[in-house]
Amino acid sequence: MEQILKMAKKAKEAAGIVGSLPSPKRKAALLKIADNLVRRESEIIASNEKDVEEGKKKKLSNAMVDRLILDSERIAGMASGIREIADQPDPVGEVVKMWTRPNGLLVGKMRIPLGVVGIIYESRPNVTADAAALCLKSGNAVLLRGGSEALESNLAIGRIIQGSLAEEGVPEEAVQVIPIADRDAILEMVQLEDYLDLIIPRGGEGLIRFVVENSRVPVIKHYKGVCHVFVDASADLEMARAICVNAKVQRPGVCNAMETLLVHEKVAEAFLPGMVEKFRELGVEIRGCARTRALCGDGVISATEEDWQAEYLDLVLAVKVVRDLDEAVRHIATYGSSHTESIVTRDYANAQAFLRRVNSSVVLVNASTRFSDGQQLGLGAEIGISTTKLHAFGPMGAQDLTTTKFIIFGEGQVRTS
Amino acid sequence: MEQILKMAKKAKEAAGIVGSLPSPKRKAALLKIADNLVRRESEIIASNEKDVEEGKKKKLSNAMVDRLILDSERIAGMASGIREIADQPDPVGEVVKMWTRPNGLLVGKMRIPLGVVGIIYESRPNVTADAAALCLKSGNAVLLRGGSEALESNLAIGRIIQGSLAEEGVPEEAVQVIPIADRDAILEMVQLEDYLDLIIPRGGEGLIRFVVENSRVPVIKHYKGVCHVFVDASADLEMARAICVNAKVQRPGVCNAMETLLVHEKVAEAFLPGMVEKFRELGVEIRGCARTRALCGDGVISATEEDWQAEYLDLVLAVKVVRDLDEAVRHIATYGSSHTESIVTRDYANAQAFLRRVNSSVVLVNASTRFSDGQQLGLGAEIGISTTKLHAFGPMGAQDLTTTKFIIFGEGQVRTS
Repeated sequence: MEQILKMAKKAKEAAGIVGSLPSPKRKAALLKIADNLVRRESEIIASNEKDVEEGKKKKLSNAMVDRLILDSERIAGMASGIREIADQPDPVGEVVKMWTRPNGLLVGKMRIPLGVVGIIYESRPNVTADAAALCLKSGNAVLLRGGSEALESNLAIGRIIQGSLAEEGVPEEAVQVIPIADRDAILEMVQLEDYLDLIIPRGGEGLIRFVVENSRVPVIKHYKGVCHVFVDASADLEMARAICVNAKVQRPGVCNAMETLLVHEKVAEAFLPGMVEKFRELGVEIRGCARTRALCGDGVISATEEDWQAEYLDLVLAVKVVRDLDEAVRHIATYGSSHTESIVTRDYANAQAFLRRVNSSVVLVNASTRFSDGQQLGLGAEIGISTTKLHAFGPMGAQDLTTTKFIIFGEGQVRTS
Repeated sequence: MEQILKMAKKAKEAAGIVGSLPSPKRKAALLKIADNLVRRESEIIASNEKDVEEGKKKKLSNAMVDRLILDSERIAGMASGIREIADQPDPVGEVVKMWTRPNGLLVGKMRIPLGVVGIIYESRPNVTADAAALCLKSGNAVLLRGGSEALESNLAIGRIIQGSLAEEGVPEEAVQVIPIADRDAILEMVQLEDYLDLIIPRGGEGLIRFVVENSRVPVIKHYKGVCHVFVDASADLEMARAICVNAKVQRPGVCNAMETLLVHEKVAEAFLPGMVEKFRELGVEIRGCARTRALCGDGVISATEEDWQAEYLDLVLAVKVVRDLDEAVRHIATYGSSHTESIVTRDYANAQAFLRRVNSSVVLVNASTRFSDGQQLGLGAEIGISTTKLHAFGPMGAQDLTTTKFIIFGEGQVRTS
């Protein structure tokens, strides 16, 4: 694994240069990458076909093979994501605030890159392009270690990115794809505390726990998304229905899908039977509390304690009738994962109370939990989601890959006490 | 150690309440604490006398005994620090920014407390009051584990703080002083990942390494401060002299004191001999590079590789003549500790280049490194200094004990892609 250490050392050198490049230079490099990905799409597709063939041989599920596939449309999507990131304001060098001390010292806080970021991810090869773009935008170097099933695709994307950087005079070691697909590569990577400043693992809970347990480098991660929608007594029930369907069904396999529905007892009778019927039509299995079952009939499975904690990532939903907003908030605090929660309400005070009292990373009023996503929130793309509070909380964009240093302008001041 | 687990559980409960108290309530509690510390100073002084007596019996150094002592003046200082913190704007609930998405979603980021903060510190009992105040200001609960030599003093201050909280109807478990002085208490504390959100160790490198190696809770820390002053070719040499004397001599035993002086070769002859003579008068031992020794005579000890990395915390200074700003910046990158560096210059471009290129947590132009301190920079007090870039970098005030959550106001939006 000598090779990974070497890559990390080069990344650290490159980070020093990339972090101090003028902003237009980094922007030009991003636009060049976007252009070249489209221009050289046939190379990507050819490499991708090898991965897909290999995946089919290995009997990957259809869903996994689908995630792997890169076609013209998906490559164009990657490029347009990169252009969006290129167009964002540059976080590096931004002076966040500035104030003057009584002794005349002018004190400011200036954004600087973190240094070298390591991304560890699974099947989707588009992460290679997104993560590289966000790291470059924020002046960082990045080591990318994708899943073995996407290795050829990732290497092809990496080659095109490095070529683009070279064309623009940016050190190509700023973006490196690790060509080793086994877990030992991860193990080696997470030990390199002298060269890496941050590791972001993206993928299943198993991968993330493996990284957290072995890493000497700080890790930002989320384990799971047990997202709630609370339908309040005053909710517009039609809106509630649309939000619940969207949150559960539009893409059930992702972390921002609803896993538990909480319904205020005052509207349970008016809302739940129809809602549950609709869910059944859509193929959703319902696991309900006693009151839900009383209202919706025998087809509802009895929910156990485990259901309140479950991240199904599937067409399964836990449903509970609650007495009031207070019980909903306490249920979320007890069983939630600090990821994303939404209230549907027409009551101003309840909307405000829910926003204040629920300390999950994303709290919504009258909108689907599916918006908890960097792209959807306007960050351009996301480098990951954090459900721990240190450094970042929620979907992370380019700015979250920076920190601030104090800059101080004096005229000879010395300290007297 | 059942006791520490119990305290942590209570702290977590209290954190939920303190974090959602209205701002004036937390402010009133802080002012009450300040008043009561002064009103009940005789209790503090009586407890402190026990610590001081015990310390003298244990033959603590004079410097350590001095740090321990609390008299009326120092207690008044603690109280006025707390009042200053009380008067700061409340970070909790602040909406840092807000923007609208094309689909009409209004997206904001709102500051929220971290939860429960653990502070592990050594002799100074005033840290008990400062840390409690910063944590309360930012809506957090705090577990305080001070040094054994200040235990009685810390417990007395803790009692007065808890009494004040009770008077104001704030849960007194929001501030708890751990009454166990041995290292096992630290070991127990840093395992409580389910109850603590952050640990900040303050003290010697040994204590900090012990915490880092054993903690399952995220740790923010700095190991050492190898701070540099660079006297540029165009420096006002009189200003440079005053800054260097202040940075080295005013309080040599602290982390923001200068440890290495870098001098541009163009002013070395004009500046160094007089400067070194002045330092000798002040009792400072000089360890210089070959050129420094050639200029300043035999009294200068020959600096070794270790000297460039040394945090002396004493009246010892390493001195090196450098070719230019570039060599100074590279020396700092190689040997520095990312803590605090200052340039003395009259050249605009060099000032800007130093500010940009040196990525230490505090970078100054024409001012003493001794200003790298929360109080001096206007944070009211500091909860610690971070020399790692994640979450916070540099002196940390109340705002650094918060994170942000996304708050989203919708009108029924669902996601379509």
